[in-house]
Amino acid sequence: MTVADTTARPLDTEFDRGTAVTEDPAEPGVHHAELDGGWRIGGGINGGLLLATAARALSRELGTAAGHTDPYAISGYYLSASRPGPATLRTEVVRRGRTLSTGQVSLSQPGPDGIEVERLRVLGSYGDLDAQHADVRTSATPPELPPPDRCISTDQAPPEFLAQADLLHRLDLRLDPACVGWALGAPSGNGVIRGWLRLADGREPDPLMLLLAADALPPVTFDLGLFGWTPTLELTVHVRAKPAPGWLLLSHATRNLAGGYLEEDAEVWDSTGRLVAQSRQLAAAPRP
Amino acid sequence: MTVADTTARPLDTEFDRGTAVTEDPAEPGVHHAELDGGWRIGGGINGGLLLATAARALSRELGTAAGHTDPYAISGYYLSASRPGPATLRTEVVRRGRTLSTGQVSLSQPGPDGIEVERLRVLGSYGDLDAQHADVRTSATPPELPPPDRCISTDQAPPEFLAQADLLHRLDLRLDPACVGWALGAPSGNGVIRGWLRLADGREPDPLMLLLAADALPPVTFDLGLFGWTPTLELTVHVRAKPAPGWLLLSHATRNLAGGYLEEDAEVWDSTGRLVAQSRQLAAAPRP
Repeated sequence: MTVADTTARPLDTEFDRGTAVTEDPAEPGVHHAELDGGWRIGGGINGGLLLATAARALSRELGTAAGHTDPYAISGYYLSASRPGPATLRTEVVRRGRTLSTGQVSLSQPGPDGIEVERLRVLGSYGDLDAQHADVRTSATPPELPPPDRCISTDQAPPEFLAQADLLHRLDLRLDPACVGWALGAPSGNGVIRGWLRLADGREPDPLMLLLAADALPPVTFDLGLFGWTPTLELTVHVRAKPAPGWLLLSHATRNLAGGYLEEDAEVWDSTGRLVAQSRQLAAAPRP
Repeated sequence: MTVADTTARPLDTEFDRGTAVTEDPAEPGVHHAELDGGWRIGGGINGGLLLATAARALSRELGTAAGHTDPYAISGYYLSASRPGPATLRTEVVRRGRTLSTGQVSLSQPGPDGIEVERLRVLGSYGDLDAQHADVRTSATPPELPPPDRCISTDQAPPEFLAQADLLHRLDLRLDPACVGWALGAPSGNGVIRGWLRLADGREPDPLMLLLAADALPPVTFDLGLFGWTPTLELTVHVRAKPAPGWLLLSHATRNLAGGYLEEDAEVWDSTGRLVAQSRQLAAAPRP
């Protein structure tokens, strides 16, 4: 792990390379990306990383007017599992407003027969977080957990788990010991997982990185004793402030596992204790 | 108020008339609606009613295969205030799957110059709620509040408030006395409003009506002592089960009022105590 080099160019980090998009010189609004297998978890590329990639393309399109580069609210609907390799992002500017602009992205990849398969459809409203009022009346307080050096690094996860979760090598993820009973065969049953996150290469958080953070912890179903794949169907993130440098505190929770589905609520707090992002996803529960 | 007539045809209720869509015989995927001023609140048509209208058009399109008539997750991005009058809904089927199908709707209205203005862009994934597993492990429990006849009907709201909220005549909304201090000049400051809801004409709840329910209570900002308009920017609803007939219990809460925006989380419980819908919206806070 290296310390953040604040002079680094935007593409000098794993996260920036992983979410890089290049405009198609011939087709306005079309961007290309190369999805990197290093962000794989289970059967596909991590949903938060994908959302950040789509969000970056939209940021480019909406940011050209009024500086609306930051996603205030962004919703991704996951259609099929993304694979490492090339992807095409087609953006549409839905509305340009004075304080907010709204756009849409479709991310697709060539299927086995070469025909494009859509992976993700995204809607988002963007603005300029630096232009928001300074008034902060947040009543929510961050959960209390031990400092990162007294939490449990996912480096210590069983090798068979790490083998399915390439992205863990790119994250420095420290789980609250109170929420890792599942790793020892004794899940708490509370449906809560908390931990600290920073990027392994020291890249500091920003609004796009918060989209990854919202989907970075292990599934809360582990804490319910349900292991296996919990594919995200829909993920909506509200980015509420630019995060301060340093560790992010993450909290994921579910309260409504029913009918084969569950919601997963995430909160992301920055190192100053500010609630910088809130998200909810609908995921399919592991098959019993 | 009349008791529900279960033999009524679908269009015999205020909600069904208010969300009715008719297919354009000439343009596949295009539907028309007539937005009814009776669902007005403040400056525009209620956001939940609009979302239900868009959801009905999508239900028609996605329901033609595999019975995917129920929105599992649906996200509306509000672009401009809707007015009473005609509206056009353009749907797109994004993906048809075995258990879920995903689609998109754009709702627009003619502007003052006759040029179409988009009001709402929606993405949703639909399935068949009746086909879900019977396994319910919900750990959430409904809030405790007095029965409807011991709560405070919004019929008793000040006339100047009712004059801005036509839709209250179509709702039978009973607020928890513990959450209405704001009406007496003493808001609790908790950012919570709870109450019971049924439709005034006795129409029973169903998945589409839950989209209205998710946006039916007064803004939680009232409980923070902030009055005025809180326009919804984005609203995502998860419909988790078909609601049983009878009263719905609604709970709205906010914890993160900051930078001129707030989230509003809603839970909808049916008369059997099941958590049938969860939603979150990002809204603009009233200007101080």
